[in-house]
Order: sequence, then C-alpha cells, then structure tokens
Amino acid sequence: MNYFKNKNVLVTGGLGFVGSNLSIALAGKGANVLIIDNMLPRQGGNLFNIEPVKDKVKVNISDIRNPISMNHLVKGIDYVFHIAGQVNHVDSVKNPLNDLSINVEGTLVLMEALRTNNPDAKVVFTGTRGEYGSSLKLPVAENHRINPIGIYAITNFAAERIILTYNNLHKIKSVCLRITNTYGPRHQMAHDEYGVFNWFIRKAIDDEVIPIFGDGRILRDYLYIDDLVSALLMAAVSEKTAGEVYNIGSGIPLSFIDLANKIIEIAGSGKVNHTEFTSERKALEPGDYYADITKIKKELGWEPIVMLDKGINETLKYYRKNKNKYW
Amino acid sequence: MNYFKNKNVLVTGGLGFVGSNLSIALAGKGANVLIIDNMLPRQGGNLFNIEPVKDKVKVNISDIRNPISMNHLVKGIDYVFHIAGQVNHVDSVKNPLNDLSINVEGTLVLMEALRTNNPDAKVVFTGTRGEYGSSLKLPVAENHRINPIGIYAITNFAAERIILTYNNLHKIKSVCLRITNTYGPRHQMAHDEYGVFNWFIRKAIDDEVIPIFGDGRILRDYLYIDDLVSALLMAAVSEKTAGEVYNIGSGIPLSFIDLANKIIEIAGSGKVNHTEFTSERKALEPGDYYADITKIKKELGWEPIVMLDKGINETLKYYRKNKNKYW
Repeated sequence: MNYFKNKNVLVTGGLGFVGSNLSIALAGKGANVLIIDNMLPRQGGNLFNIEPVKDKVKVNISDIRNPISMNHLVKGIDYVFHIAGQVNHVDSVKNPLNDLSINVEGTLVLMEALRTNNPDAKVVFTGTRGEYGSSLKLPVAENHRINPIGIYAITNFAAERIILTYNNLHKIKSVCLRITNTYGPRHQMAHDEYGVFNWFIRKAIDDEVIPIFGDGRILRDYLYIDDLVSALLMAAVSEKTAGEVYNIGSGIPLSFIDLANKIIEIAGSGKVNHTEFTSERKALEPGDYYADITKIKKELGWEPIVMLDKGINETLKYYRKNKNKYW
Repeated sequence: MNYFKNKNVLVTGGLGFVGSNLSIALAGKGANVLIIDNMLPRQGGNLFNIEPVKDKVKVNISDIRNPISMNHLVKGIDYVFHIAGQVNHVDSVKNPLNDLSINVEGTLVLMEALRTNNPDAKVVFTGTRGEYGSSLKLPVAENHRINPIGIYAITNFAAERIILTYNNLHKIKSVCLRITNTYGPRHQMAHDEYGVFNWFIRKAIDDEVIPIFGDGRILRDYLYIDDLVSALLMAAVSEKTAGEVYNIGSGIPLSFIDLANKIIEIAGSGKVNHTEFTSERKALEPGDYYADITKIKKELGWEPIVMLDKGINETLKYYRKNKNKYW
C-alpha cells in the first residue's frame, strides 16, 4: 500500500486530535502533507501534536472560512481530509452561530474552492454518529433514521449533505464518515466539554474523581484513534467510496461506568463518582449508540484492530509522558 | 375561531407569496400584523401583495440575519410565522453561501432573538418536501427517510432542525411544516427559477409555450395558497403542535404534463413544448412526490378544500387583473 507516496494531501484541522494523528501517518507513507488549522483556543489545535513529523509537514495557519486562503491552498492537492470543525457540544449551545459558521460555512467555502480551483481532488469528511439522534434500533446502520439533536449534530449533517451534493452535482469525488466516540493520544485534555473517554484518562492519571452522569449505563462504542486513521486512509484511496457514507466505530457496546472502571483498573488510580446530568447535557443526550460497521467491512475490508485494553494502555503511556503539553 | 383577535403576530418574509397571503388572512382576523421583509430582488417580495391590507399591517424592511433588528422586533410577539427564505433552487446552486446565510443563519438569529427576548412566542416554520429527497414510498409520510439533495433542501432541513432544537432545549414552542408545491395569487411571476405552477399560469395567460422538461410524467401534489394559509393558522393555535413536524400538501398526484394541459384548457390559451432537462435541474430533480397528509388531518382536522379547477380559475383571474404588477 503505497498510495500516498508523493501525493499532495491537505488536512484541515491538522493540528487537532484526528488531523494530527492522520498527518503523522500520511507523512510516514511519504505524502506531502499540508495542514490547515486556525488554532482557535479550546478547540484542540496543538503544535506539539505534530512533533514527530514537524520537519516533514507544512503548517498553514488560516481558516477554512477564508475563501482567499482556501482558493490558493487547494490547488494541486490530490486528497483533502476535511476534519476541521467546531466539535464542542457545550459551546455549540452557547454560541450556535459560531458552530454554523465553522462547520457549515467553512465546509461550503472549502467545496467552492475545490469546485473552482481543483475539482479532481478526492474529499474525505469526518462527520458524527450524532446525525442519527437517538437510536431506534441497535446497532445503528447507515440507513437508520436521520434525526440530529442539537446544533452540533445539525451542522455536521448539513456539512455532510453539502459535500455529497458537490459529489453528485459538481462531480467532486467525496466520501463521508459518521464516526463514533474516538480516543487516544493527541486529544485536548484541558477541559471536559468534549471527548469524554480522554477526560476519564486524565482524571485517572491524576488520581481524581471520574464524574459519571446518572447511573452510567448508557452504551457507546469507543474507537482507538489508529483504527480511525486507517479507515480515513482506506476511504480516501478506494475507487468505490465516492458519494458514499460509512459508519466508523468499534461496534462493541460499553457503558460509561464499565469504561470508567476499566480505565481505573488499568491505570491503577482514579475513582468514580455519580453525579446528575446538567439540563443541557440531558436535553442533548441521545442515549445508547453503537455502530453497525458491516458496510465498511464488506466494501473496504476495514475493521478495528486495537482492543480496548491496548488502546487504554497506549493512551495512558502517551499522556503520562507528555502531560505537561496537554494540561 | 377568533384566536388571532388583537394578537401580535410577526411574519418574516411577509411581502412574499406565502407571507402576504397569510398576512392578509391574519389582518382579516383582527391580528396586529408586523411584517419583516428585506425586499431582496428576485425573491418574490412585492409591496403590491399586501395592497388589500396596507393600512392594517406594519411593514418593517430589514433582514432576519440582523440581530439588532430582530432582538427588538420579536418583543411582545405572540406568534411568529417564519417564512422568509431563499427559495430559488437555481440561485442556491450558483450562490450556496447566500442560501446558507439567509436560510440557516437567518433562522438561528431569529431563534436566538426569541430565546433572549421572548421565549414565550409560538413559532411556525415553513419548510419543504425537498427534505425527503427522492421518494422511497408514495405517498410520503413524515417518518420517510430524510435525504435532502441540493443546498436549498439541505438549508431548509437544517433550519427545521435548529427550530426543533430550540423547542426541545430552550422550550420555545415551535411547529415545522414540510410543504409541497404551492400556487396561487401573489407569487412572483418575473422568472421561472422557482414556482413552476405559477410560471405555467403566466405562459398560458400570455398564450406562450409552456416548457415541459423530459416527458412531463413526474408527479407532484399541488396545493392552493388558501389551503396552506389555513394550515399555518391551525398549526399556530393548536396546543398539540409544539415540537411536531407535519406534511402539508393536497395529497393528490398530478403529472406536469397533465397540469399544463389542464391550465391550457381552463385558460383557453398557451401550448406545451417538451424540452430537455438542464444538467443542474436533472441533478436536483428528486422525481415523483406526493404527500401523505394523514397526520395533520387526524391531529388538527386540517384538509385542503380548494379543488384544482377552482384554484386555477382564481389564479388566472388574479393575474389577468394585476398582470402589470407582476410581469
């Protein structure tokens, strides 16, 4: 698999959690990686994230909403991984216009830049399982009812549909992923407003209380970042994926309380405390979710390979070593 | 039914087709009507539309995207009919950022203005059948798969979901309608980029060619404007509608070619010519659609009462008399 050797690859949000791990993998495969990131505070952008490849990738600090930057930067690109986004659920309630602007206007500016300057690039978009809202049937397959709850899920769905419209109408080959909760190295650890798994890791490392909302019995399937990166790469190179949507997840349900206890057990520190949902969290909480990943398994041969224990161990190791870069 | 007597009612887009017919009905019921319209060219806003009630309603020329205007204008309002929107499918392809800005940002600014200044108002939103995309099963009920194709349908779905999020999260009572093709007096007649039924009426009146794309066998259910207005009023006053979505349509399928021939027959002028789809129209054409209106019939007792022949006659009469105000 040397598809990316000498390919020009643009990663929006490339200094964040998903973008930086992907950029490191792409640089390792010999791609010419161009990262765009606006380094908005509290959004996860961190120059330390790309430390291992800082001399191999180009970093361009700008904003996907700026058509002047984007029209120039998309030229000559073979693959665009569109990962930049406002991902903070709490901020999306407080400042919905900002969410709309970054997630939807930003996506439109990017797609218009491609349409005008480089319609031959292939686009991979990282959307969210939130597009389904509460699950009618588990596991959730791609043809499940669409019912986004909250501005974050709505703006992600709108971005996905815009990208698919550019695929259908303007023939810009694009594939959209609906991704479950992902964890691992390079996630922001400064606050608990998104990325619950990683927040539990921080609390365990610091031997502090892991807060569990309600009884902690809500189910999610957690995916280790390296598995997500491999899904992104496979979705990009496959000829079959244009215009398609794929669920990405481990497919293995786990409750918040079992997750917290597992982390505490492996870390050897931390403790659980039950607490009430805030009204905002309660109104936006869709309940149990785990992905049916049959489609991507069958069509692309992708499946997650990092088991939970191993993923937790790797994550603990990374943050214990680099704690001062994250909190 | 005197629910609207002395009620303060805000109609966004109140100088356009749906907004003006609604405002006339509301004024007739004794409501204090405040119209907001930005009079954007080619969007259907027309001061002549409110000629019958021009001394009874207030007109405020401003833009729903302007939070300064909106924060002031929503104060003291009992009912908000949110009808303003970019409805031109062709423009939405050419200038998608404008579509996003008017339809989604505008809706968010309105809902934030209500949240901050007047969370007790009831909101009625006029969305589109386009949210369903191509029909998997006919007639189409509210639980049909959501699959918006094109920026216009995507931005309408996002607006609907934002409004429902404000209903659930911020307790602003809101009801969303998904409306089929509507026709009748006060629609713009200047161009053919939206409002196909009314365009056929103009062509018949002028004894010109009615262009039919392809074989003209695609089915739609056409609704006369007075029936839509009665649905809007009933959705507003019912206590049961908060947080709900309703299809609005005649439910009676009719092909484009049969519609054109019916209009020609009643008008006594005009002729049909078959022509090819443009590539843009073809890519955005979802095929057959007609609404399952069981839900609103059962829950609100609404049903369309204006038969097609009568609706065509009324529409012909209006435009023959007022042609110089519309084209």
